[in-house]
Parts: sequence; structure tokens; C-alpha cells
Amino acid sequence: MLAKTFVPRQLLVSRCFSSVTSKTLKVGDVLREARVFSSEDVKSYAEVSHDWNPLHFDQESARKAGFESCLVHGMLVSSMFPRIISAHFPGAVYVSQTLHFRSPVYIGDDILGIVQATTLRQTKNKYIVKFSTKCIKNHSELVLLDGEATAILPNLEVLQPCHSE
Amino acid sequence: MLAKTFVPRQLLVSRCFSSVTSKTLKVGDVLREARVFSSEDVKSYAEVSHDWNPLHFDQESARKAGFESCLVHGMLVSSMFPRIISAHFPGAVYVSQTLHFRSPVYIGDDILGIVQATTLRQTKNKYIVKFSTKCIKNHSELVLLDGEATAILPNLEVLQPCHSE
Repeated sequence: MLAKTFVPRQLLVSRCFSSVTSKTLKVGDVLREARVFSSEDVKSYAEVSHDWNPLHFDQESARKAGFESCLVHGMLVSSMFPRIISAHFPGAVYVSQTLHFRSPVYIGDDILGIVQATTLRQTKNKYIVKFSTKCIKNHSELVLLDGEATAILPNLEVLQPCHSE
Repeated sequence: MLAKTFVPRQLLVSRCFSSVTSKTLKVGDVLREARVFSSEDVKSYAEVSHDWNPLHFDQESARKAGFESCLVHGMLVSSMFPRIISAHFPGAVYVSQTLHFRSPVYIGDDILGIVQATTLRQTKNKYIVKFSTKCIKNHSELVLLDGEATAILPNLEVLQPCHSE
């Protein structure tokens, strides 16, 4: 289940908003953010989550479980998705998230979080948006984590639009 | 989607390991842990996740979105599930998690995390276990968050067995 999964390179460079001038979210638009988790991040997350699984702190435990070194908590990596959505749509309400942890994320890995709008529905004065959510190892095609999120957005105006690549 | 969902009271007091003397996980066994998230927890989580959604810090934003007061990050509440599993099975590797955020979790709410083994499969010298995962408002039947987790456990010996209620 932790087998390596690859996505075609063209998906990684798909459009990020239909035009640079557009600031309204549309189906197909992509939001991205890079991050490297440090050992201090892992410790801070353990302190707030109370999750002190030795896989995150003890090299021997990590190696015994088949990993190269200490892992970042999967749920800490997953936090990139609501972070990316709420950074672009402050006031977004998270409704659901599925998560498949496909490859280990190590402390110091250069990770790219990718969130793509897949469906969009207006209800009264709010918007229910489904996103495909993915973390890949930056500058590679290795999928670390993927799934789907649904959020209620107060509007579709993108606060920090990113640009087409 | 944030409608109130109730579980029958008898499910909340279901068996927690088939007997007090048994320390081996079986299908149907339940692990529980209570927690109250403070505003300091929410701030610490925002610092490590970089998720500064105003719903978690600004009363007016929270009320404008239809909530009574500031919310705990859904992914912080969700961290209770891997925490509960890894506290009982150190070295557990998280494989997947689904999450449905059904009711708001407010700072100061008394929450009970409930993890129940639903299927169990041995593969070589490890165990793949599916768990139903749920957070309820303690002393009530209100489901705040539910879903399903899969984890690879190094063994089935429960480190901190809880007792039948």
C-alpha cells in the first residue's frame, strides 16, 4: 500500500487558473504550495497532537518498520490541503477529506502540495467545491499522499491567485 | 453536510476488549481517549500547519460562517485517531483515513475519540487493521467527525488496554 505511484508529468504542469487575469475559481484550476517539514515541525506537531509514535523520532524504530529514516506524521503532511484552500479562500469550511498515504515522507523532503478543483456547486450564497488533493516529492513525479477534499467556500474569488506554468 | 448525526447510546458503551485479561486486539475491540482542545492548542497547530484560517481565531468570521464561536481545526481533531492507534500500537504505520466533518468542534469542547477495529488481516509478520473512527461530544451522542482508518500494526498486543464499561 506504500508502493510508489507516479503521475504523468503533464499533470504536474497543468494550468493554474485559466488566465493570469482571472481571479475566480473554475473547475480544473490548481493551487500549489511547497513545504519542507523539519524535525522541529515534527516535534511541535507531536506536542499538539500528543502523537509520539516512535516512527517519527527513533531511527531504529523507523528502520525496523522498513523506512530509511524518521517519518513526518501523515496527518501533518495532510494539513497542507486545508492550509492551501484556506490561504486562498479565508473562511472556507472543511467538509470532508480522504487520504491515502502512498509513500513515506521523510524529515527534510521537499514536498509540493497540489489542490485541483474538480466540481463546483452554488448553494444559496456559498459554494461547495470538491478538490483532488495530492502531495508529490518536488521535482519528481512520486505521489506521497493523495485523496479528495470537499469545502464550503464563502466566495470564489481567489485571494492569492497563482499563475499558469 | 454539517447536520447533527447521532449514534445510539449502546454503541458508546460497547465492549472495549473482549475481556479485561485479553491484551490481543480482536475485531470489535474499541480504543477510546478524551480530549479538550484549548485556544493554545489551536494556535500551536496553526503555527506548525501554517493554517491561519480566520474561523479558528476571529469570532466574527466564525459567526459570519454560521458558527457559535471559533472552531478547532478539523485536521487537529482528526489527529486523535492516529494518536490513539499509535499509543496502543507503537510503530503503527498509517495507510489511509477518511474524514467527514459533521458538526463543529469548538475550543473547550469535551471530545471523545473512539476507534474500533472492524477488519483484521495478517500479512507476513504484520497486521493490516481497518478501524472505524469517530469523535463524539463527550457525555452526548453527537457525532462531530467520523470515517475509517487503515493501519499496519507490527503486532496485535495492546500496549495500554482499556477495560469493558
